[in-house]
Amino acid sequence: MKFSGAITLLLAISSTTSAFTLNNPHRPTSFVTSNRSTIQQPQQALSTTTRTSRTSHLSMSSDTATSSPPISVGVVGATGAVGVEIVNCLNKFSSLNVSQLRIFGSKRSAGTTRDTGKFGDVEVELFGVEAARECDVVFLAVSGDFSLEHAKAISEGDDGAVVIDNSSAFRYDKDIPLVVPEINGECSKGNKLIANPNCTTAIGLMALWPLHKLFKLKKVAMSTYQAASGAGQPGMDELKEGTRAVIAGERDVAENSIFAHPLPFNVIPQIDKFMENGYTKEEMKVTWEARKICGLPDDFPVSCTAVRIPTFRAHAETIVIETEEPVDIEAARKAFEEAPGIKLVDNTAELEYPMPLTATGQYDVEVGRLRKSLVFGDNGMEFFVVGDQLLRGAALNAVLVAETMVENGSLGAK
Amino acid sequence: MKFSGAITLLLAISSTTSAFTLNNPHRPTSFVTSNRSTIQQPQQALSTTTRTSRTSHLSMSSDTATSSPPISVGVVGATGAVGVEIVNCLNKFSSLNVSQLRIFGSKRSAGTTRDTGKFGDVEVELFGVEAARECDVVFLAVSGDFSLEHAKAISEGDDGAVVIDNSSAFRYDKDIPLVVPEINGECSKGNKLIANPNCTTAIGLMALWPLHKLFKLKKVAMSTYQAASGAGQPGMDELKEGTRAVIAGERDVAENSIFAHPLPFNVIPQIDKFMENGYTKEEMKVTWEARKICGLPDDFPVSCTAVRIPTFRAHAETIVIETEEPVDIEAARKAFEEAPGIKLVDNTAELEYPMPLTATGQYDVEVGRLRKSLVFGDNGMEFFVVGDQLLRGAALNAVLVAETMVENGSLGAK
Repeated sequence: MKFSGAITLLLAISSTTSAFTLNNPHRPTSFVTSNRSTIQQPQQALSTTTRTSRTSHLSMSSDTATSSPPISVGVVGATGAVGVEIVNCLNKFSSLNVSQLRIFGSKRSAGTTRDTGKFGDVEVELFGVEAARECDVVFLAVSGDFSLEHAKAISEGDDGAVVIDNSSAFRYDKDIPLVVPEINGECSKGNKLIANPNCTTAIGLMALWPLHKLFKLKKVAMSTYQAASGAGQPGMDELKEGTRAVIAGERDVAENSIFAHPLPFNVIPQIDKFMENGYTKEEMKVTWEARKICGLPDDFPVSCTAVRIPTFRAHAETIVIETEEPVDIEAARKAFEEAPGIKLVDNTAELEYPMPLTATGQYDVEVGRLRKSLVFGDNGMEFFVVGDQLLRGAALNAVLVAETMVENGSLGAK
Repeated sequence: MKFSGAITLLLAISSTTSAFTLNNPHRPTSFVTSNRSTIQQPQQALSTTTRTSRTSHLSMSSDTATSSPPISVGVVGATGAVGVEIVNCLNKFSSLNVSQLRIFGSKRSAGTTRDTGKFGDVEVELFGVEAARECDVVFLAVSGDFSLEHAKAISEGDDGAVVIDNSSAFRYDKDIPLVVPEINGECSKGNKLIANPNCTTAIGLMALWPLHKLFKLKKVAMSTYQAASGAGQPGMDELKEGTRAVIAGERDVAENSIFAHPLPFNVIPQIDKFMENGYTKEEMKVTWEARKICGLPDDFPVSCTAVRIPTFRAHAETIVIETEEPVDIEAARKAFEEAPGIKLVDNTAELEYPMPLTATGQYDVEVGRLRKSLVFGDNGMEFFVVGDQLLRGAALNAVLVAETMVENGSLGAK
């Protein structure tokens, strides 16, 4: 284990040690092995700097870090909310041995310089397929249309780059793996193009997977409490400015252009467009992606109501499950304590449970409020999950996919 | 039908006519007969004055209003968030023929004067059982302990007052009716002490009851998005001040004393204390009260996750149901269009669905996002409900109980 030493404008490493790590000596060290540390102080979610600067992170594996081959990494969309966090993750804990970090942008940003922490000042290159193919791995943090147009061209052939795509462009393509490393990381093996899941799905599945292994899922019903960060930095900015205007008495109702309705002090039960069955596409993403990632049947019953609320970052989810096997809450608790990427926060006597305030900026997904379901009896359970939308829900997952592919030999220096 | 003409400091009647009434000519006029009007403009929820001043309301029944006997009304706790709204409801639309409005308070407030709209300036009387018994009906908007101590003494005997209690003190007493007038108003008949339900329950049941009549409920799972107003005016004040301090950059994390954790830009999955089964008391209230009000078996499966979010007023709820009979969405839609106290807001093509922004200050509970459930198939449905916590969730329901009791002969001039 090592601490990243990089202190940059984007991120500063705090000296906070990990109480969670100390409390969880039995956390497994195989597969995705990191004890991603978490901090105990509440964090407010207003600025990226504040969110990330307090968090110290242990490297996934110093052995891997020092022994893995140096690889060149490209990021397309590095100035967006997810792209910024990808660079943060590469700086702060990743075991990827990055020989070169390249940033690709549009004509507008090409030629400008980005501070990328320990990788130094990097000049943004005009995106081009050939240049991107020179990298060993390329993270796409751009639109689905962009990915559809370029991802295959970047990755095809033996000399193409591994592409990890954050958009929804390829998630439902049966030939392209959709990966949460802790669940189906092995699906990445031998592939050049990997889809990163929807944020809501990834956060929820981190908790659902250990339960599926224990009790076998039969039905899943989810309701979400999704932060403005789901709409990127412009979404967070709109929430902040609208809240300010209302609190200052300048407006009764905030203005909106990013969200369908004003978000400050409101709740919007719509994320993404409506489908013919009455669900939104965001809700169907949870259904489709849960089935694919967990290897469940095509008609496996998963439903979601996706709701935008006025928080900045970290999505929360209530989840009700019916199970094939009777639920044992203590067994579930133990599984969560041992699962990589999960932090069990379930001490109701001390009023401790998952919250955006504590989960924001954390690599681990918080799980708590564990109880047998009054609806499904012994064969059911209800719980609450909160995860950082930009980390587990996007950037962290993508970087972990790359680490997994280094481990299974699918990603290395060309 | 008539418009209330009262214009006071507490409330001003807008000239907005009711688009809803115009769109719903078939709304029944029997039983709780009001076409409680709703407005189309979004409302912000920062001040009581703003919230209520834009709303015009039609009287429940001009015949009833003019023909019903004059009664004296007492309010205990008239300066709290619910008490203020009870006085508002009596002013704005109620068919109760109020001959005298009396306000009872503690030693601290006794002797001061309250502007009560069309009832004029009213001097607060020191609360005493004998004085309260002189009223025909007394609304208790105080603590459960106060109600436990005094409610029966106020109501007992032929010459006692009818008491409508907003606390949870008597809700689970099998001898005391727990009433949502549109559902089980007939239970009030011949009784002197009536319990008003929990806000979350009342709002949810307004939507569940028409569905139960159509398809027969089998299972109910609810997740809530509850506003700061559930903790009264101090809760709303804490959210406002904390939000201001964070937005102004004075604090990273807001201070908290009313809520267990800082609420601004956060989500708190706890309301009321924890029970042995892992649910909170707020969640169990939904279970217990739904069974009692709807006449369901004692083990009927209802579960809830109750979550506090940073909105000021109006609770939202996602609800998933399994039904005995196959669901017909169009039949459900029609039932909601015709049900008193419900406003169907379900035009997804126009991005119209229930939201706190539109439901705040409204008497009707908004219902939308109607769809067959992916979890329960043809025998299941999912939907979204938003209702004003202080109105349907408390004050309005209490006043409607009194109106119902006038109609069924249980409340009149002594």
